[in-house]
Amino acid sequence: MDERPVIGITLGDPNGVGPEIIVKILSQEWVYELCRPLVIGHDEVLRQALSLAPLAGDDSPGGRDGGETAPNLDIHVTGHPAAGLYRYGTMDALIATEVQIGRLKPGQEQAEAGKLAVESVKRAARMAMDGDIAALVTAPMNKAAMSLAAYAYPGHTELLAELTGTKHYRLALAFDGILVSHATTHVSLRDAIDRLSEEEILVTLNLVGNALAGMGVASPRIAVCGLNPHAGEGGLFGDEEIRIIAPALEKAREKKGARGWRITGPLPPDTVFMRARKGDFDGIIGMYHDQGHIPVKAIAFDRTVNVTLGLPIIRTSVDHGTAFDIAGKGIADAGNLGEAIRMAVSLVGEQWSVGGGQGAKTTS
Amino acid sequence: MDERPVIGITLGDPNGVGPEIIVKILSQEWVYELCRPLVIGHDEVLRQALSLAPLAGDDSPGGRDGGETAPNLDIHVTGHPAAGLYRYGTMDALIATEVQIGRLKPGQEQAEAGKLAVESVKRAARMAMDGDIAALVTAPMNKAAMSLAAYAYPGHTELLAELTGTKHYRLALAFDGILVSHATTHVSLRDAIDRLSEEEILVTLNLVGNALAGMGVASPRIAVCGLNPHAGEGGLFGDEEIRIIAPALEKAREKKGARGWRITGPLPPDTVFMRARKGDFDGIIGMYHDQGHIPVKAIAFDRTVNVTLGLPIIRTSVDHGTAFDIAGKGIADAGNLGEAIRMAVSLVGEQWSVGGGQGAKTTS
Repeated sequence: MDERPVIGITLGDPNGVGPEIIVKILSQEWVYELCRPLVIGHDEVLRQALSLAPLAGDDSPGGRDGGETAPNLDIHVTGHPAAGLYRYGTMDALIATEVQIGRLKPGQEQAEAGKLAVESVKRAARMAMDGDIAALVTAPMNKAAMSLAAYAYPGHTELLAELTGTKHYRLALAFDGILVSHATTHVSLRDAIDRLSEEEILVTLNLVGNALAGMGVASPRIAVCGLNPHAGEGGLFGDEEIRIIAPALEKAREKKGARGWRITGPLPPDTVFMRARKGDFDGIIGMYHDQGHIPVKAIAFDRTVNVTLGLPIIRTSVDHGTAFDIAGKGIADAGNLGEAIRMAVSLVGEQWSVGGGQGAKTTS
Repeated sequence: MDERPVIGITLGDPNGVGPEIIVKILSQEWVYELCRPLVIGHDEVLRQALSLAPLAGDDSPGGRDGGETAPNLDIHVTGHPAAGLYRYGTMDALIATEVQIGRLKPGQEQAEAGKLAVESVKRAARMAMDGDIAALVTAPMNKAAMSLAAYAYPGHTELLAELTGTKHYRLALAFDGILVSHATTHVSLRDAIDRLSEEEILVTLNLVGNALAGMGVASPRIAVCGLNPHAGEGGLFGDEEIRIIAPALEKAREKKGARGWRITGPLPPDTVFMRARKGDFDGIIGMYHDQGHIPVKAIAFDRTVNVTLGLPIIRTSVDHGTAFDIAGKGIADAGNLGEAIRMAVSLVGEQWSVGGGQGAKTTS
């Protein structure tokens, strides 16, 4: 039996760097040693992106010229994850929806592109819910193109939450074994303060702690940031730490302490990340979007992966956008997608088997 | 003529790590090659700290035992900066005020300690104003001890602003050639949003740009952060970028563009520091304390130096506190103080001479 999990990789916006980085990463053999990758989107888009990837073993600056068939650049179209070939040298692709591929233009916001991107994610999510793929790795979508195609989602996270009927979910950033999430995310800073509540903090803390436990961290050490500079310095610079955060952490410690969770905070936000880098924490809870996004991108831009916590399916993502400015130029870096694939595989664990249905996937 | 500038190093709270890191750094010869260091505070406190510094050339774990006199551990008391010896092996110390040294206890908050710390800074600031020292490097004070001694200053910055009659000033963080300051600092996050104004942004921008120019950066490249995640994403997550920040930057560009300043922003805050690390910017303006303090400490904790901008004197500082928990144990790291001394010397430039009065000090 093939124990490599099937990982669904969605195409992302076909006019962005998604197809290029997918072709580039699938021309690296280690991916096939780790998993069975299935590109969900459209084989024609992949075919066009082939010219952007270097020929295997070809280090010449020009890369490949037309007509040649590289050993790792065949495409096999399959209608079901179980029918993929999953061997290095051939990319398996599944057509999520038919669109007019010939009209797509790299770097452009187009309704057709938005439609293909969203429908690929929808199809992949259904397959993950059915247990036909073990996890979902997403390439970037473009909000404007989605809007042109009349989809009203701010991004992957909200789309996946709706598709899976999930109420409590969070986007987390993962880097160097540290998981970072936030009590609030895509709202103004003023709204983030207004919305801060014990409940939002506890939801985030539980999702991060459970994810860490699922990743094999038996007694997760979780740092919780204050909201204000110096965590309010005893009420001198704001009282949210005293009124909201500390009481939430008291409750969390009562409930989770017995399970071995070690919860520290509210801590001065400007020393938490430095301490995490030294190895003090496995998880960090920020109070607002930039509290984690600023330092994580500053420390580990290339190796940070997005993970959606709380979904009934496993989903990781690159931590960059469609990069329309460099789309179609062959200069996009696929390293971050590689990290997202590795992370997805590590979250799957060893309990998954193809077609086993949702119940067959158990995180340890 | 001795061209090394005289750098006044204030003792900080004598019960904190200040005396220890001063003794440690002055046992390194490079400091004397770079400048003429004068410790401002009390020679007796330094004398007690001698046992915490390793003997020059002695790498044994136990370090030095009583009675020995190391070549670099003599102390010379002087009443005036012009009368210092300034040779490696002897530390020059100036007594700022008399306190009962015998009653001081490492790690304790004491009024006597707060008094010595503050009076040292006052004395040093006067000497800098008089042109008797070229710059001021401060070791950390303790707010509680200052309060016990009936001084009502939140910290060095406000004390120095009052002593020098300065209205517009900012604390800046300097690391890897990048200068970071903030439109607001020690207020709650909610207050920081309420206080955000074109004026505060322009004051900060001007101070950072002028400091960079003084450091020899002819056409400073300054990045200005937005307030909200993604810099508000076109008004979707807050409108401070549109209402306040962008108009301020328009004005700044009109005035400073002709002087060669290149001002970029408002930028999504979570990519600014990553770009600065790649070399895109010389200066960064944050909208609130943690916007800069979080990433700078995460990236460069040990090598970040504080610089007060806007004062008529040059002042740098270590970027850590009194560390009462490790005071008197001999394990404090003096590296950050070394960085603060280097930074002070680089800010002094080459135009300074002892006793030349304020006018003799010209930043290029």
